[in-house]
Amino acid sequence: MAREESRYRVWRHTRETIGPIEPVADDIAVEEPMAIRVGGRGIGITMRTPGHDEELALGFLVGEGVIRHASDVVHVRKCDQGEGVSGEVIDVLVGPGVVVDFTRLTRHVFASSSCGVCGSATIEAVRGQFAHFGGTAEPMASGHMLWQMMEQLRTVQPTFDTTGGLHAAALFELGVDGKAKLVVAREDVGRHNAVDKVVGFGLRAGLLPLSRHALLVSGRVSFEIVQKALAAGVRIVAAVSAPTTLAIDLAAESNITLVGFLRPGRFNVYANPQRVRG
Amino acid sequence: MAREESRYRVWRHTRETIGPIEPVADDIAVEEPMAIRVGGRGIGITMRTPGHDEELALGFLVGEGVIRHASDVVHVRKCDQGEGVSGEVIDVLVGPGVVVDFTRLTRHVFASSSCGVCGSATIEAVRGQFAHFGGTAEPMASGHMLWQMMEQLRTVQPTFDTTGGLHAAALFELGVDGKAKLVVAREDVGRHNAVDKVVGFGLRAGLLPLSRHALLVSGRVSFEIVQKALAAGVRIVAAVSAPTTLAIDLAAESNITLVGFLRPGRFNVYANPQRVRG
Repeated sequence: MAREESRYRVWRHTRETIGPIEPVADDIAVEEPMAIRVGGRGIGITMRTPGHDEELALGFLVGEGVIRHASDVVHVRKCDQGEGVSGEVIDVLVGPGVVVDFTRLTRHVFASSSCGVCGSATIEAVRGQFAHFGGTAEPMASGHMLWQMMEQLRTVQPTFDTTGGLHAAALFELGVDGKAKLVVAREDVGRHNAVDKVVGFGLRAGLLPLSRHALLVSGRVSFEIVQKALAAGVRIVAAVSAPTTLAIDLAAESNITLVGFLRPGRFNVYANPQRVRG
Repeated sequence: MAREESRYRVWRHTRETIGPIEPVADDIAVEEPMAIRVGGRGIGITMRTPGHDEELALGFLVGEGVIRHASDVVHVRKCDQGEGVSGEVIDVLVGPGVVVDFTRLTRHVFASSSCGVCGSATIEAVRGQFAHFGGTAEPMASGHMLWQMMEQLRTVQPTFDTTGGLHAAALFELGVDGKAKLVVAREDVGRHNAVDKVVGFGLRAGLLPLSRHALLVSGRVSFEIVQKALAAGVRIVAAVSAPTTLAIDLAAESNITLVGFLRPGRFNVYANPQRVRG
C-alpha cells in the first residue's frame, strides 16, 4: 500500500485563539517526484501522489500517443535507485514496433530546478538556489490580517464568480498597523500562472524581495507554489485549501510560514508558526 | 482589456429536464497557449488565461531564478505573430550581466503535442494525432447515470475526505441497462496524474479504446484533460467543476461530450449534447 497521506503537525487557529497554541496531528496529501523513463531514457519528472505508479507512467504514454494497447508494452517496472535515494523511477519498455519521438516527450510538470528524483535532494537544490534572501523573522501576521486578506480576495475575484473556472493569487502588504493592504490580484486557469503574474507585477513595481508581503492563493498549495514564493522572497504563504507534504517540507526548511484552509473564523498553520499571532 | 472569459452555449439540465432542451449563453474562463522566449529563444509554452502576459513571463523567470530585479530586464514585449496566428509570444530581453541556463529552462506546462502557439492549430494537431478512434454516436448517458457516477466518486475518494488535498478521476462503464458501473478510481495531487492513472489501468485491463466508458474528474476540466480522454478513446467527460474554453473547443471538435458542474440535481453540457438523455 503506497503512502497517499502522511501525518504532520498543524497549528489550528479560530477566532477564539489567544496566545501560543499546541500543534495537533493532521493527515496531509503526499506529493513526491517520480521520473518516467522509456527504455531507460528519461523523459521527465512529475510531482505525484505515490501509488499506482506503473499506471501513471502507462497512462501518460497513452495521452502522448506513444502506446495504444497493452500489447505495445513489454514491461513496466520500478528501477532500483540504490541507497539514499527516495524518489521513484518507472521504466517502460515498449515493443520494437512502437515508434517513440523523444523530442516531443518532454514533460516537465515539475518544471524547475529538478536535480533528481529524491524529494529532499530537490528541496536542498531549491533552497540553495534562492538562499540570497536569507533568514528573517519578519513580517508578522495576525489572524485578523489573514481573514482580511481572504475577504479582499473574494471581492477582487470577478471572473471566478461568473465562470467558476479560475484560480486567483493576491499579494498583500502587511503593515505594522495590523492591516493587510491588497497590492495586486490576478486570476488564471493555472494556479502557478496566477502566482507568476503577481510576482511579475511585484518585480516591475520594484518590490522584490517581497519581505513585507504575504501571498494568498485561492486553491491548494503545492511544492511549486512555495518555490515561487521563496524565489520572490515572500515569507508568508496562505491558501484557501490544503497544502501537500512537499509544500510543507519546503516551507518549513525555507523559513516560510505556510497557512492553509484560510476560511471564515479559522485557519491552519503548517510551518513556521512563529510569525502568526493568535 | 484582455479576454478572461468568453461566452459559450450551455445545455443546463436539472432533475426536471425531460427531452431536448435549448442551450443558453454562459461565461467560460478562457484558456489559451502562450509562448515565452528569452532573447528570442523559446523556453516553453504555457496554457494560461490571457491578460497580464508580460507579468506572467517575468514572474515565471523570477521563479526560475533567472531574474531578481526589474533592472535585470531590458525589455519585455509581445511579438508580432503575423496573419492567421492567434497565440501570444512574449519575449524577455535580459541584461548582459544576467546568466541564463537554457538547459534548465524547459517548462512545458502544456506538455504534449504543441505544434505552435495558436489554439486552433493546436487542436488540429491533437485531433489529427488521435484520429484513429474515429467518430461514433455511442455511448449514451442519462442524467440518472451521471448523478450515479458523482455519488460513487464521493464514496471512493477516501483521501480527499481526510486531507482535502487530492484530485480524483474515475472511469465508469455505461451499460445499456441504464447503469453507470465504476471501473476504477484514483486520487493524486495532480489532476492530470489521476487521469493518467485510470487510463493506465484501462490499458492494462485491455479496455482501450474506452468507447463504452465515461471519465469523471473531481475538479475543473482543462484542454489537457480532454486531450487525455481523446487519446484513450473516451467519448463522455464529466467534471464536478467548470471547463475552460479550450477544453470545450477540443471536445466539440473531437466528438466528445463534455459535462461540467455535475452536482446533486443538476449538470451542464458544453459540447456534443446528443449523447445525454434528459
